Order: sequence, then C-alpha cells, then structure tokens
Amino acid sequence: MTTTPPYQFGPRESKKVIEEDLVFAPKFDEHGLIAAMAVDAHTDEALMLAYMNEESLRMTLEKGQAVYWSRSRNQLWHKGETSGEFQEIVEIRTDCDQDALILRVIQHGGGCCHTKRNNCFYRKVVAPKQGGLVKLAMVE
Amino acid sequence: MTTTPPYQFGPRESKKVIEEDLVFAPKFDEHGLIAAMAVDAHTDEALMLAYMNEESLRMTLEKGQAVYWSRSRNQLWHKGETSGEFQEIVEIRTDCDQDALILRVIQHGGGCCHTKRNNCFYRKVVAPKQGGLVKLAMVE
Repeated sequence: MTTTPPYQFGPRESKKVIEEDLVFAPKFDEHGLIAAMAVDAHTDEALMLAYMNEESLRMTLEKGQAVYWSRSRNQLWHKGETSGEFQEIVEIRTDCDQDALILRVIQHGGGCCHTKRNNCFYRKVVAPKQGGLVKLAMVE
Repeated sequence: MTTTPPYQFGPRESKKVIEEDLVFAPKFDEHGLIAAMAVDAHTDEALMLAYMNEESLRMTLEKGQAVYWSRSRNQLWHKGETSGEFQEIVEIRTDCDQDALILRVIQHGGGCCHTKRNNCFYRKVVAPKQGGLVKLAMVE
C-alpha cells in the first residue's frame, strides 16, 4: 500500500526569492495561521475570509476542497463536511510576500455563509459625513 | 473652528445582533487588528490583503482613502501617501461575524502592488498530484 507523500513548502529566503521566484513559501503568523479569502472562481465575488494553518493548507491541496482552521473552535474545519456546502478548489493564489491566500472556488450546496446567504459580505458600512455612530446597510 | 467628531463603532452584543442587525461592531483581534481585502470596485479583482487597527479604520472613513496598519513597520500606513498609489474608497463591506472587511476601491497611480503589478496576487500555487514540493507559477 502506498500513501501520498505530504506536501512540502519552501524555505523563506530572501525578499527577492519570496516575491519574484516560484518557490511556495507561505508565511504563517505567530499563531501558525495565514489568511485565506475564498472567491467565486467564475465571477470573482468574495465569499468569505477565514484562516488556515499548515495542516489545513496541506489538506486543502490533498482534497481539492477548502479546509480551514477555525479560530473560534480551535480545530480543523473541512467546510461542507456536514452541511454539503463545500468549496471545490479551482486555483489558489498567493500575494507578493506570501502571507495571504486567495482560494478561487466553486461553492457547492446552498451558499457559502452559515446565514444561508451566497456570501458572508452582505452588509456595507454607512458612515455619516459629520462623524458619529457608524451603521450598516444590507447590500442589495 | 469646528472639527469632525470621531466615528464611533457599536458594542458587540449578541450573535444575532452582530450577524443580522445594522450596528457596525467590528471585531479586532488580540493585536487590535482586523483583516481588510481591497478589491477593484468595478471588476471585483482582488488587489491586496492587509490589516487595520481601530485608528486606521476611523482614518479610512474620514479620508475616504485606505489607511492600514503595517504589521511589519508597526505603524499607520496611508497607502499612496508617498507613492501616489492611493485607494479611493467606494464601499466597505463586513462579513457575518464582523471580523473581516472588504474595501471596494478605485486604485490610483501605477498599480496596487509595490512590485509595480496591478495586484499582489500574481502567482498561483502548483501542487504536484503525487505530493512533494509545492511550487508557484505566474498568473498569465
């Protein structure tokens, strides 16, 4: 029986290598996390922002589905495992300093957000010109 | 002489209020930061991901331009102040639990990224099916 060898990431060498070369060397913060924004692969619509640790990023690559690290539950979170609302990975991009990810996904099931909406960003900030209490409004 | 009163944010009360009501009650992490993804207001193209503290979020609302908190330099970062590559705010959205922001912006100057590219997400992850070293490729 053979097992798939785990995915390995590169070392974070010089700024030039990190920014311009083709070595994947993600930077995890002091909690071992990296921010990951999921967007619709076809429309670029932003769906949700969550975090991954090294293990969940490896699992995401292995499964081809988004696996996050839940900061509130402090555990791995294979999105959709119970709800069916999983995210099929089309492409993962990283940024110049490799401390953020974009997951370009196909969202399966009823929608991305646990509130049953298509995405989590369903409200916009309304700041009165004269200052004071900032409110929200629903995005139409 | 009159001064603009500062912007105030709401209290984080129940989960229901945070998720469904129209009170803007952003959640800053233990370092006082909230993640903010800047996207092109017209095309939804993801430009960059950075962080804001409470002061920089207030300044963003006041100026109508993105002001971040630089985690590497540990200081306020009014993007474009020296380079001219500032980000004019069209709309700010927040997510269900209000611990992330999307800035829908008009990017001025030569481009968003300090590498002189339009956006920071110019490379995609290439993971070999059989496991092993994960690489990057340029997004065409």
